[in-house]
Amino acid sequence: MDPKNRLNEDVHRVHSNIERVRSRAPRLKDERVTLAHGAGGKASAALVEQVFVSAYESAELRQAEDAALLTFPGSPGEGDDGSRIAFSTDSYVVDPLEFPGGSIGDLAVNGTVNDLAVSGALPEVISAAFILEEGLEIAVLRRIVADMHAAAEKAGVRIVTGDTKVVPRGHGDGVYITTAGMGRIPASVQLDAHGLQPGDRILCSGPIADHGMAVMMARGDLAISAPIESDTRAINGLTAALLDAAPHTRWMRDATRGGVATVMNECAQLSGLGIVLEDQHLPVRDMTRAACDMLGIDPLYVANEGTFLAVVPAEEADAGLDALHAAGAPEACAVGRVAESPAAQVALVTGFGGTRMVDMLVGDPLPRIC
Amino acid sequence: MDPKNRLNEDVHRVHSNIERVRSRAPRLKDERVTLAHGAGGKASAALVEQVFVSAYESAELRQAEDAALLTFPGSPGEGDDGSRIAFSTDSYVVDPLEFPGGSIGDLAVNGTVNDLAVSGALPEVISAAFILEEGLEIAVLRRIVADMHAAAEKAGVRIVTGDTKVVPRGHGDGVYITTAGMGRIPASVQLDAHGLQPGDRILCSGPIADHGMAVMMARGDLAISAPIESDTRAINGLTAALLDAAPHTRWMRDATRGGVATVMNECAQLSGLGIVLEDQHLPVRDMTRAACDMLGIDPLYVANEGTFLAVVPAEEADAGLDALHAAGAPEACAVGRVAESPAAQVALVTGFGGTRMVDMLVGDPLPRIC
Repeated sequence: MDPKNRLNEDVHRVHSNIERVRSRAPRLKDERVTLAHGAGGKASAALVEQVFVSAYESAELRQAEDAALLTFPGSPGEGDDGSRIAFSTDSYVVDPLEFPGGSIGDLAVNGTVNDLAVSGALPEVISAAFILEEGLEIAVLRRIVADMHAAAEKAGVRIVTGDTKVVPRGHGDGVYITTAGMGRIPASVQLDAHGLQPGDRILCSGPIADHGMAVMMARGDLAISAPIESDTRAINGLTAALLDAAPHTRWMRDATRGGVATVMNECAQLSGLGIVLEDQHLPVRDMTRAACDMLGIDPLYVANEGTFLAVVPAEEADAGLDALHAAGAPEACAVGRVAESPAAQVALVTGFGGTRMVDMLVGDPLPRIC
Repeated sequence: MDPKNRLNEDVHRVHSNIERVRSRAPRLKDERVTLAHGAGGKASAALVEQVFVSAYESAELRQAEDAALLTFPGSPGEGDDGSRIAFSTDSYVVDPLEFPGGSIGDLAVNGTVNDLAVSGALPEVISAAFILEEGLEIAVLRRIVADMHAAAEKAGVRIVTGDTKVVPRGHGDGVYITTAGMGRIPASVQLDAHGLQPGDRILCSGPIADHGMAVMMARGDLAISAPIESDTRAINGLTAALLDAAPHTRWMRDATRGGVATVMNECAQLSGLGIVLEDQHLPVRDMTRAACDMLGIDPLYVANEGTFLAVVPAEEADAGLDALHAAGAPEACAVGRVAESPAAQVALVTGFGGTRMVDMLVGDPLPRIC
């Protein structure tokens, strides 16, 4: 088939996929689980809110953060020094298991380290539970485990406990990994989206959309290919440097499933304030932008695995950026600001001076991305 | 088909399954993952030792316990009062999702609570990560989540953080759940298999083999059926009562995958001493024993999900048993003792005065039991 025709088919498939999931209800009127429930956008939020949070009646779950902050009296919890323990978990089901720039092993360590890091914690220990599919090559498992070890070393965390289950051929997909992690949040760190102020700056630690596009290319079912690498990395060194240089940082979040658009919408909803992003300042590598353009995918909705957003007071923004540049994020930049309006929503100012609203991800144009 | 013939076929199938997995190498010369790697016996141990422990180079993993005890300087770890934090994780892939006496939701909470409890910890918080299969009925998910909530309430733990991923139809099995948990171990509790002494008594908290047989019956592919219920329950109340009454308790372990035989072998290997079990004192309900007999399965190898074994000094055994009876385990009993020989092995004294050696589980006659 002519490559151009294949590309058109790809574009059509992606768009019909988007349409298909958009047509599904974001509210939980579904009677069955759909792929959109796993995408990190509106459907995921509905599932979590209406099935899990309502059933568990847990104050920590209601915080709608990626890590629970344990502050109950006695221990483990608030220390004598006012520190708290952060506790977080994520399952990883990425397809394929290995892709340019990383593997499910890197993701499983970095993802949980990063959830702890953006809560303001210093990640210390990780657990790793494996669901293996009968028939998986041990050599593949060894490579993944080696990636986890290397990622843990790099992040300065230890993998201290684990579990292995095996499911019969056809009931898994090689390897699923679930990690949980914990770390301590120094008493000086008080992150809370409710503390946002109009005028605060939004910092982004690096180029966006690389991870999702790298995984999509690695699946090999698109007519286009491009040398895009996942951004998977541990960001705990970056968040610590930022908190040091910009001690009044309000809030941080890694832009994973649902991308920058979804994370910024969560921030707007939690704070009740508006987030105004500037299109021309959003860092997207040329290759990644070209791939997104060809497939008609907005990079704002593509998952990242080593890129985070931080809201800092305007007067600490420059110091924060300098610290990020020095700590290993040379492409960190300011991408927007907090405003009174649009209240609880996100707006994007385009290069031509126009403005458009940016909604949360609806549905899942790119399933199994992490 | 004549029921008797069907039963004979079942027995034959179970036995050929056992033979098939026995013929596989317990050492990791396999090049692919097999179901036996998930069964909790020798193959699991080989996989963990040769793939995970060797790669992660983690001192905690080498302890070969189900929970990591975190004692590193600073926190989270050893408190000023000498207490430590226990951290544990398990994935649950039981088939079917619901069975007499419980569901994957009960298992996922109780299993992790129990791993913490037998490490001597007071379990406090749990994380829950779901891998959902596209097409799962939301009603089923709601029931499982309700079971988790009820189990957590009963155990006195809180579910504080979680995650949800969705995999496409055909790449899961309804629901897989991974929980991680933590709790604090009081300074007074010092459990260590190296502390075992000849003459110590082995206590068993209740009837064995119910869980595995209940799940097997629930699959509905056997000619026999029997009203056997899983023993799934949280044992943290029991372990706390035991530690209170028998403060020099040496070691505890819940007898899950691989059953009592496998757990006792781990204990013998860790301590270097012999474990002598008395067949006539092993508590097995009549119905469960009959089902095991008909299928030719040794109840010593069948998984339990709410039954644990404890090694206590002889002089504290009676007080320990009294405490267990009072705390909700009326059928707790002494099932054996620690001896100089057979060194690092387990022997079973039969009713006729004979003795046979009891090996670890080899292979997996009952896959997907938890």
